[in-house]
Amino acid sequence: MINTDICIIGAGPVGLFAVFEAGLLKMRCHLIDALPQIGGQLSEIYPHKPIYDIPGYPTVKAQELIDNQLKQIEPFHPTFTLGERVETVNKLEDGSFELISNEGTKIRSKVIVIAAGLGSFEPRKPAVQGLENFEGKGVSYMVKNPESFRDQRVVLAGGGDSALDWTIFLADIAKEVTLIHRSDSFRGAPDSAQKVFNLANEGRIRLLLQSNLSSVHGNGRISKIGVTDKSKVESFIEADSLIPLFGLSPKLGPIADWGLNIDKSAIEVNTFDYSTNVDGIFAIGDINTYPGKLKLILCGYHEAALMAQSAFKYVFPDQKLSFKYTTVNGINEF
Amino acid sequence: MINTDICIIGAGPVGLFAVFEAGLLKMRCHLIDALPQIGGQLSEIYPHKPIYDIPGYPTVKAQELIDNQLKQIEPFHPTFTLGERVETVNKLEDGSFELISNEGTKIRSKVIVIAAGLGSFEPRKPAVQGLENFEGKGVSYMVKNPESFRDQRVVLAGGGDSALDWTIFLADIAKEVTLIHRSDSFRGAPDSAQKVFNLANEGRIRLLLQSNLSSVHGNGRISKIGVTDKSKVESFIEADSLIPLFGLSPKLGPIADWGLNIDKSAIEVNTFDYSTNVDGIFAIGDINTYPGKLKLILCGYHEAALMAQSAFKYVFPDQKLSFKYTTVNGINEF
Repeated sequence: MINTDICIIGAGPVGLFAVFEAGLLKMRCHLIDALPQIGGQLSEIYPHKPIYDIPGYPTVKAQELIDNQLKQIEPFHPTFTLGERVETVNKLEDGSFELISNEGTKIRSKVIVIAAGLGSFEPRKPAVQGLENFEGKGVSYMVKNPESFRDQRVVLAGGGDSALDWTIFLADIAKEVTLIHRSDSFRGAPDSAQKVFNLANEGRIRLLLQSNLSSVHGNGRISKIGVTDKSKVESFIEADSLIPLFGLSPKLGPIADWGLNIDKSAIEVNTFDYSTNVDGIFAIGDINTYPGKLKLILCGYHEAALMAQSAFKYVFPDQKLSFKYTTVNGINEF
Repeated sequence: MINTDICIIGAGPVGLFAVFEAGLLKMRCHLIDALPQIGGQLSEIYPHKPIYDIPGYPTVKAQELIDNQLKQIEPFHPTFTLGERVETVNKLEDGSFELISNEGTKIRSKVIVIAAGLGSFEPRKPAVQGLENFEGKGVSYMVKNPESFRDQRVVLAGGGDSALDWTIFLADIAKEVTLIHRSDSFRGAPDSAQKVFNLANEGRIRLLLQSNLSSVHGNGRISKIGVTDKSKVESFIEADSLIPLFGLSPKLGPIADWGLNIDKSAIEVNTFDYSTNVDGIFAIGDINTYPGKLKLILCGYHEAALMAQSAFKYVFPDQKLSFKYTTVNGINEF
């Protein structure tokens, strides 16, 4: 059981800045994110893209912003649960919350801050019959721990950066790597595509272009994967693991069932402190909505600051909050 | 007559970021500030102090933040009127505004954005009888153009950084420099204080410690200044200029008379677009107030972004606004 003052759902830029604002008021934070790494969309989808509208940065690469924010919150030692999604939220008798993840992790927290961006990013799943039966039994849609594929026969499918990057990475770890892609060119970085072609030419991976995943087989665990080529002929590959990497699409997910007022997949909040209709639950960043709302990172930062003022009352009900400027007082580590 | 889409009163960090958000929507900005340089409080009061709560900056010096923001708005070529204060605002028949400064500069603008921080910084004036009669006639409370003191006999008064820095600077320009200070130690940087002591020892300036400005004399222009020493004996110095530098204190100033709803020296706005009760006038940053308001730079950034969406309707009443991400579209210079 993890105990914390504020459980922040979502470890993107807004969730990370909430740690900072909470930290200034001596509140501890635990963050949970469905993605296997910190940084939300910025790290998952466009780490190398420049952002131009972060105040004070004429330009900053998405991952660089995340790295700087992580440095900014170092004094407050946040803790993380990554690659897990909060499924259930229970309100306890003392007013605090118990959160339970899809993997059974339990977090007890006085306040919940939902900073989940567009929701949890759900993998786009290929339409292959019976695929869902092998989820967790050889089929995974993201690579949380590359070591778990050591000495395995791995089949990847997809043509974007994730498919290319993991093919290259796993070529050194797995016993055998196959990459299936429906086209004969890649959407990912040209540099990564070249590396994959080189690995194929060197015989270090098997590259099946103009091919599609067609069937999955196995007894309990996956053991064989069907692939059709451009003339629709199906062949089979023996495999221990299948990793379809067809991108992620955002879904509000279980959050929709927690009794929060939802309007068009966004959580309704007020602009006084970005609290929701449920006492003790706040929503900040792209996941909330209010009159005038703009889905900008810089707006989420503001929302985090105002949220922290009200969260303080739940975490320290007997204390009086005094507002202090960092320029005057600096940052006090804890 | 200066013509612009948005006239921003205040060239501090929030006013500067408003230029960026306006620029993304193709609106041109002119900024006017009572201070002689860009940057507001950050450049005037604490340029070398680190700020810790700008999102994405574990630490940033105040002047560095201003410099970065100036770089960020370069593509939008804002224009500036510095060292002047807006005295009068007239609403014209076509719905636009005419602003007139204390020096008679006229600006015509479709929208006014007040981003004036704590108000205009007014010099603290020493209690010397008749001093006000010599304002603009030899008495000035800030140095806008050091060259105007070339070959003059200048008397400065004060013990902070401004007094020290200008004494050092003017020693090379003026014919004769006298610094009057009530104590025998300085509040300003030790390094600057040492320089002033050295200049006095070298006979390059006259340093009157434990002394106070006591009287001003002249026929039309100032010509003689009275100084009392610790035993209250008054002596006189012939001078062409007197520069009392006793710091600045913020005042709402003429803004209070423009028909805006004011609550405790702050302008009331709504959180939909940070508009005031006067159509076409917005207020962002430390100068505004609303339920939950925090006087943080990062909050002003958010307010600037939402303001720009509504300002667009005044500047381009016939156009439809389409929201675009800089990460997708980049920045289009104009």
